[in-house]
Amino acid sequence: MINQQKYFLGVDGGGSKCRVLLTNELGEALGEGISGPANPNQGLDQAINSILSATEQALKQADLPSHCIDKIHAGVGLAGVNLPKYRRMLEQWDHPFAQMHITTDLEIACLGAHDGEDGAVIISGTGSVGMVCNKGTQHAFGGYGFSVGDQGSGAWIGHQAVIQCLLALDGLRPRSELVDKLLSFTQCADTQQLAEKMANLPPSAYARLAPLVIAQAESQKDAIALDILMSAADYINQLSRKLLSFHPPRLAMIGGLAEPIRSWLAEDVKPHIQEAIHSPEVGAILYIKQKSVISENV
Amino acid sequence: MINQQKYFLGVDGGGSKCRVLLTNELGEALGEGISGPANPNQGLDQAINSILSATEQALKQADLPSHCIDKIHAGVGLAGVNLPKYRRMLEQWDHPFAQMHITTDLEIACLGAHDGEDGAVIISGTGSVGMVCNKGTQHAFGGYGFSVGDQGSGAWIGHQAVIQCLLALDGLRPRSELVDKLLSFTQCADTQQLAEKMANLPPSAYARLAPLVIAQAESQKDAIALDILMSAADYINQLSRKLLSFHPPRLAMIGGLAEPIRSWLAEDVKPHIQEAIHSPEVGAILYIKQKSVISENV
Repeated sequence: MINQQKYFLGVDGGGSKCRVLLTNELGEALGEGISGPANPNQGLDQAINSILSATEQALKQADLPSHCIDKIHAGVGLAGVNLPKYRRMLEQWDHPFAQMHITTDLEIACLGAHDGEDGAVIISGTGSVGMVCNKGTQHAFGGYGFSVGDQGSGAWIGHQAVIQCLLALDGLRPRSELVDKLLSFTQCADTQQLAEKMANLPPSAYARLAPLVIAQAESQKDAIALDILMSAADYINQLSRKLLSFHPPRLAMIGGLAEPIRSWLAEDVKPHIQEAIHSPEVGAILYIKQKSVISENV
Repeated sequence: MINQQKYFLGVDGGGSKCRVLLTNELGEALGEGISGPANPNQGLDQAINSILSATEQALKQADLPSHCIDKIHAGVGLAGVNLPKYRRMLEQWDHPFAQMHITTDLEIACLGAHDGEDGAVIISGTGSVGMVCNKGTQHAFGGYGFSVGDQGSGAWIGHQAVIQCLLALDGLRPRSELVDKLLSFTQCADTQQLAEKMANLPPSAYARLAPLVIAQAESQKDAIALDILMSAADYINQLSRKLLSFHPPRLAMIGGLAEPIRSWLAEDVKPHIQEAIHSPEVGAILYIKQKSVISENV
């Protein structure tokens, strides 16, 4: 008996991991998968392998044979494909799916957060970025990466902690308990060690310090930690106000920093932040369904 | 006839170039040399080659044969040897000089700036750092490198220009003329290009933008440029006050940013800043002479 079923796959691929969700035509979840980095900036082959490996897992979980991959309609949201070069590279991939459409991880997050309807989304995890989809137009702000942006993100907060604690250790700003917490967490005995060990690290390594800063700000009213979180919140406030100026029906915040940063936001911003309805993977499925409808109608 | 003369060599080795000065025992300049990077963090062989190549030039300029290198007493001030690992590596070098003593580029700058006497010095060039030598004690502040420090330096100012102009292009802060100047200088057509082109560059590349920011702040009263220079000056103010708290007889500022940043400093700091008496190379010669006297007296 030939399996005539049609499947949908939602792919959310970022710089550290790739998550997929497999559903049937009714939208029922059949299987999930998780694999490594899928940002094509970090290597096209790696991105493709991550997508395929997570898909294989999802098929297995759904008790479907590998060859069913040619019945899958895949919506693929990836970090990095906001750069045309990487988007083209992915689009030239001789993929094994029945159909594949590619967009940014940001767009599928926005679609998921608002169940495919208009809305705005802020992602604050290791990095930060904002997008609004309203009345057929899309606008993105930020997302320029750790080196020249990503304010208010986990990496930014952790990096600021290193910078501000070094200033405090030099006696150029008042010292707070965060200094000792940071020295102990990083197992550094002094200023010189801290400066050496914490220089030139990848964003994910700085992001690992963010929970320390948040804990100090929340429970200890630590002056350095408070300054950092207020600056982070200030950026998210500005970004939120920008997105709200497009009058989206909803504004959601997702990512690891979304919850902790929320209580630090300004009073004019806080009431606008709503929960995301679905995950980005579900958003990716909504995306491929939209694209399929368009293809069928063309 | 055998040349019984004794020579002194001052070496100032940094991350981009190495300058040397050769003098006779009377302190008369005989020759100079300039070569490539001499920071051992970037490669020990390269550092040694740069020192030898600049020395060779100085000997040639002094009309002295190469073998006279064994009559040279060398004072060597290098970036990077504040880290014990690199200092040890250099000290194990089987050098061709009659005698060699190694210290940081910061210490020779301080010695040069105050003619071997007590004093404090701030270096603000591509990076930034401060040191005070007073009554037999030394204290250094900053100098942690571009990744986690170097506030108020050329690299820091240029990097801030990129960050702040991206915020302005996103409409998250008011735009100023610096945005257009920066886009034009970097030959970028839009936000996305600027973010891509100006991310993850070496400090020297960001430092190249500093003159643009300074010019905008000085002549155009550009709000973004003014903010950046005020923040840079704020760090140099804090650093100066810290150094002045040790009551050094003099405080000098050297490096490419020293002159332009001076007019932005606070009124309590400005009157304390004095000219450096000599170059760091001369400081390196003062250093080797001090060490020679100590050796003779031991």
